[in-house]
Amino acid sequence: MLSGGALAAERKRAASLPSIRVSSREKGDLVMLGIGGFTPLEGFMTRADWQGVCDGYRTAAGVFWPIPITLSTDADVAVGSEIALADPDDGELLATMRVTEKYAIDKAHECASVFKTTDPAHPGVKMVMQQPAANLAGPVKVLSDGGFREKYGELFMTPAETRTEFERLGWSRVAAFQTRNPMHRSHEYLAKVAIETCDGVLVHSLLGALKAGDIPAEVRTRAIGVLIEKYFRAGTVVQAGYPLDMRYAGPREALLHALFRQNYGCSHLVVGRDHAGVGSYYGPFDAHGIFDEIPRDALETRPLKMDVTFWCYRCGGMASGRTCPHGDADRLQVSGTQLRKWLSEGSAVPAEFSRPEVLEVLRAYYAGL
Amino acid sequence: MLSGGALAAERKRAASLPSIRVSSREKGDLVMLGIGGFTPLEGFMTRADWQGVCDGYRTAAGVFWPIPITLSTDADVAVGSEIALADPDDGELLATMRVTEKYAIDKAHECASVFKTTDPAHPGVKMVMQQPAANLAGPVKVLSDGGFREKYGELFMTPAETRTEFERLGWSRVAAFQTRNPMHRSHEYLAKVAIETCDGVLVHSLLGALKAGDIPAEVRTRAIGVLIEKYFRAGTVVQAGYPLDMRYAGPREALLHALFRQNYGCSHLVVGRDHAGVGSYYGPFDAHGIFDEIPRDALETRPLKMDVTFWCYRCGGMASGRTCPHGDADRLQVSGTQLRKWLSEGSAVPAEFSRPEVLEVLRAYYAGL
Repeated sequence: MLSGGALAAERKRAASLPSIRVSSREKGDLVMLGIGGFTPLEGFMTRADWQGVCDGYRTAAGVFWPIPITLSTDADVAVGSEIALADPDDGELLATMRVTEKYAIDKAHECASVFKTTDPAHPGVKMVMQQPAANLAGPVKVLSDGGFREKYGELFMTPAETRTEFERLGWSRVAAFQTRNPMHRSHEYLAKVAIETCDGVLVHSLLGALKAGDIPAEVRTRAIGVLIEKYFRAGTVVQAGYPLDMRYAGPREALLHALFRQNYGCSHLVVGRDHAGVGSYYGPFDAHGIFDEIPRDALETRPLKMDVTFWCYRCGGMASGRTCPHGDADRLQVSGTQLRKWLSEGSAVPAEFSRPEVLEVLRAYYAGL
Repeated sequence: MLSGGALAAERKRAASLPSIRVSSREKGDLVMLGIGGFTPLEGFMTRADWQGVCDGYRTAAGVFWPIPITLSTDADVAVGSEIALADPDDGELLATMRVTEKYAIDKAHECASVFKTTDPAHPGVKMVMQQPAANLAGPVKVLSDGGFREKYGELFMTPAETRTEFERLGWSRVAAFQTRNPMHRSHEYLAKVAIETCDGVLVHSLLGALKAGDIPAEVRTRAIGVLIEKYFRAGTVVQAGYPLDMRYAGPREALLHALFRQNYGCSHLVVGRDHAGVGSYYGPFDAHGIFDEIPRDALETRPLKMDVTFWCYRCGGMASGRTCPHGDADRLQVSGTQLRKWLSEGSAVPAEFSRPEVLEVLRAYYAGL
């Protein structure tokens, strides 16, 4: 991201350019480009990049990349022109862009490649199918963090900041725990398995948009904060957030999650059951298997593959599908629907499912809805 | 180990040679040499090997090796002669040996190097200080498994057998869980953390001699067997044993444990708190630190470094010094002395400490003492 005098000058220049509003997903991608989360990408992808990424996980320059990072518009923008990119909500100028190419894509091909489905009920597919017809490619100069710093304060850490923090803590083996949900005991267990075998864990919350019904980031990160404070040792966890929207691309998104964690300084990514999945579009371990299908040198970040986790009454403890030999009847498994019902009704939630301090934060949120 | 006609011929030849009885520790080393557990060693170490291993973890040929593997005797044996090596208990001829060197060592130097102490109360030091004055070096031909197969049946697996088994199971990431104790919940937790992050675990019991008061291998492996049957998933654990005596060399023995696990086909070794330690001769994490002090290419097997593990009442689950933020008062920690007292008195043992099925095996043992 630009800073100082260069930023002021580019902001001034941006104000003189024709501007287009980007979508929420594009804004997240843009902020990631700005803060170094998507290094080595320098802007939105060309047609050749798009095709290469869809069909072979590689940009035209040969960079491993699992999901197209594209910008689309209905506006009349000429190739060779410069434009400003504006926030979808408040119109703030987020970036300038030199438009090097304008192209149409086969959206269904992107969806089939990336989401393994063209079902319009899939939230990622829906997003792609609804986007404008023309994609614009070109390098960007990012002018803003999109308000994430203001909204989330110290929780919004750039890759340079997490790397500096890990160095200060003396961590070299760092597992990223990707989350878009509050952390209940099953998630705590996943993070703790990672802590047992690594120097520390980055609990890394998605701060962008989710599908309807998901718990918003500010509530979720507060609930995670009390969990860390009460149930983790100081010096074993860093909580931070990153600006992307969910795409729900399952295996491909797991690869993206691992890829950008390299930039954040993580050596590992916890990949749970149905990672980044939605509905039943992906097999529970598709996001594990894909790490074995890509070339060994495609990613530095290694997956910490984990099965579904739960409290087992016969084990008398937290366990996973790999470590518990007992049956479903012995396992406490609570659906999101069930939990929402309990919380909004004020019913008791088993302590084996979630920490009371976490439940308190969520109850307050549901009570305020 | 020799087999078939070659074995029969060598046995016949052995019977015609002068023989010496080896010590219990030497017998264990000999059987390991015979079954390929100590590959690439071909026999007992020379003076130059001994010096190199004590001072720089290397044999004269440059092989990384953390503890001297030596044979000592008071008998009148000539350099250049061939001898037979006999079992300390029943006199069975275990091996033939071509004596290439006879040498004296500075025992105190070995103890200070290997055990970090010359205190004769240390069981490893005591063993070295009591051994005869002359060391014999030379290659061995091993004729017997020392009765381990007969005594332990399928539990006594050779390195070739464990490798074959791991291949059959499709395991490439295999953690060895070294144990000389029955497994209570703290050990179960260590093994399960390894299972969460590896393809499977080799629960690998020391079958040789221990210090007084330790639970004998046949009881211990039975207790471990019921634990695996009731509390682990099929296909995640292989239980086996290896023929060595304990040396209680702490950090150096942890390196040896990792080194010979390469031969058994393991990629990792669980290294807990005060691994292979005794009394308070070693710092609780000395056996972790030593893996960072040796050259990166010295060992293929990587340590899975783990802190002390226990049930924590405030966590409401198993945890370790790395994952539990609470204090000693919240943690269930049971000393060996306390447990022996409970078991021999028939008192109740908390279910958070040990599985009832395991306790039942141990109670029967104590009742029979």
